[in-house]
Amino acid sequence: MTSRRTFLHAAALTGAAATISPNVLLAATAPKKEKLGVALVGLGYYSTDLLAPALQKTKNCYLAGIVTGTPAKAEKWKKQYNIPDKNIYSYQTFDQIANNPDIDVVYVVLPPSMHEEYVIRAAKAGKHVWVEKPMAVTAKECQNMIDACTKNKRVLTVGYRLHHEPNTQEYVKVLRDGKIGKVLMVNCAAGYYDARTDHWKQKKEMGGGVMYDMGVYVLQGARLATGEEPIAVTAQQFTSRPEVYKNGLDETSMIQLVFPSGARASLQTSYGMNMNYLHVTGSKGTLRMEPYSAYNGQAGDWNGNKIQHPYEVPWQQTKQMDDDAEAILNNKPVLVGGEEGLRDIKIVEAVYQAARTGREVKIT
Amino acid sequence: MTSRRTFLHAAALTGAAATISPNVLLAATAPKKEKLGVALVGLGYYSTDLLAPALQKTKNCYLAGIVTGTPAKAEKWKKQYNIPDKNIYSYQTFDQIANNPDIDVVYVVLPPSMHEEYVIRAAKAGKHVWVEKPMAVTAKECQNMIDACTKNKRVLTVGYRLHHEPNTQEYVKVLRDGKIGKVLMVNCAAGYYDARTDHWKQKKEMGGGVMYDMGVYVLQGARLATGEEPIAVTAQQFTSRPEVYKNGLDETSMIQLVFPSGARASLQTSYGMNMNYLHVTGSKGTLRMEPYSAYNGQAGDWNGNKIQHPYEVPWQQTKQMDDDAEAILNNKPVLVGGEEGLRDIKIVEAVYQAARTGREVKIT
Repeated sequence: MTSRRTFLHAAALTGAAATISPNVLLAATAPKKEKLGVALVGLGYYSTDLLAPALQKTKNCYLAGIVTGTPAKAEKWKKQYNIPDKNIYSYQTFDQIANNPDIDVVYVVLPPSMHEEYVIRAAKAGKHVWVEKPMAVTAKECQNMIDACTKNKRVLTVGYRLHHEPNTQEYVKVLRDGKIGKVLMVNCAAGYYDARTDHWKQKKEMGGGVMYDMGVYVLQGARLATGEEPIAVTAQQFTSRPEVYKNGLDETSMIQLVFPSGARASLQTSYGMNMNYLHVTGSKGTLRMEPYSAYNGQAGDWNGNKIQHPYEVPWQQTKQMDDDAEAILNNKPVLVGGEEGLRDIKIVEAVYQAARTGREVKIT
Repeated sequence: MTSRRTFLHAAALTGAAATISPNVLLAATAPKKEKLGVALVGLGYYSTDLLAPALQKTKNCYLAGIVTGTPAKAEKWKKQYNIPDKNIYSYQTFDQIANNPDIDVVYVVLPPSMHEEYVIRAAKAGKHVWVEKPMAVTAKECQNMIDACTKNKRVLTVGYRLHHEPNTQEYVKVLRDGKIGKVLMVNCAAGYYDARTDHWKQKKEMGGGVMYDMGVYVLQGARLATGEEPIAVTAQQFTSRPEVYKNGLDETSMIQLVFPSGARASLQTSYGMNMNYLHVTGSKGTLRMEPYSAYNGQAGDWNGNKIQHPYEVPWQQTKQMDDDAEAILNNKPVLVGGEEGLRDIKIVEAVYQAARTGREVKIT
């Protein structure tokens, strides 16, 4: 199946064209700058170890401010990155960011359960919004976030770093160009052993469960490989640590997707084991990536041809933020708008329903 | 889980010991020979291109006779392999094989629906029996075949060539030795594009359907990798050629297995696409084989260590028949007795039930 949407999606990934986000066309109302000032909301591991270092390397944006509930973190970051006091916010003072011309973009790096609130508050404050994956906990929240950004004429992007990544872009182009024929079966696995027991990833009320966090990688693997949206899902969920993963929280999910073309996907994601690969069976060959969603080191092959674009961490995050800032600065379409994140969360909801009921669930 | 049976099974594969088949201990009643005479029943592709050439290379057995319903084939084989007229049977004269001391073993290479009848007739004729995979269409048929061989004090083996194969034996040993830790997830796929439309593989009444033919390879992959028997299964079946695969016949099956230890397997098998790999995720690493069930060329790695024992076709079939003949000649346990084939057919029946009902099926 090669629908117009599918074509556009593939084209966006391969740099030839781009999907149209309704937010993007509104970006022209932002004042023209050389570089966008970014405020990170939530200073956990990902902000500390990946995004802040990446923002020291970006060309189109820079670390302008922070939002944190921990004064000690504020002090540390202020010194380390030379952030002026006026650009440091707590969650209580966050809405005053509306009056700060240094901040053009708010990057929400909070637990998933807090995404909706802070994306909407940021949009209302007149800021463009980048939000980490998973976009939110429910499709309804995702839609509210999209609507808030549209209403406030702000750009919304989701932190799907792999869309900006050359190994991913190459394997998608290989598949979309038909190099291995028609895509028939996708196998994709992404997991790691998470020894933690009280992180948000292990808390249902904070948006925990592996399907949200690592699960979106395997859904993305299947959607990017096929260039299609799944129409039905069966799923199985289980845990080897019931004392940690309880109240319906999944440590491991196994997912089977049905696509309109007849292609199928078999996906696994886990907090209980280390695995990371993509294996695509086509009518004229095979494409493999392993690892396929790491921060670097991706490697693969198709019909004897290698795919390997090496780089150092945090190149992916640097590229993602530069791409997104460049799109905003030049009023161009973004690679990953809110609709893309919403699609995955719709599937995540269907996966949980399928696992709970033990029945196939249609995805509309 | 390391049950005694599991240990024995692994040990058999790694050459240290062997499973005990109830038939085997009875083999002492056969007259002692240097080489066993084998009669092939059914002269299709597998007999013609693999088994007959292999029987020219075996040390412990040789091609002594044939059973065919096609006079032209009888004439061709007779000349090509110098088979005496008295060792050539039709399906009508087959039972007279009881009086032929040249024939020690009957190798049944017929469509699966005919296995039960010819295995039982061969056992009643006082011959040891080798039967191609899948062992039969139903578990009941498998049990009848086992019972007939036991009653007639004949050895029964199933043509699972991979149990005799050094790459398989090495990966099983690596896993059983705990080299990648506890086995947590098995991904295994085996399929090829079958362009035929009226072979027995496309006929339900002859034991067709991919789950029987290629499906037992992925079940074997999961059972060998875990060393366990599955306790529950979910499955999805579909076809891209409904005009060929009809009346409940599967072109492609996707299977998810639950094992007692908590390990899981995700398996795919198909007549609609070419795929062949095994991917095992352990608590301390990963093992991969690709291809894993071909007639030669198997290759793999685990935690950076290579697995690769090269050989030429039909080495596997030669080794399998030599192993089985040697066990019979020396009254030793066989590597793959009837019980091993029966276990897979029990799972195949559960897979069809799970796919038909859309529900998890317990395997007892």
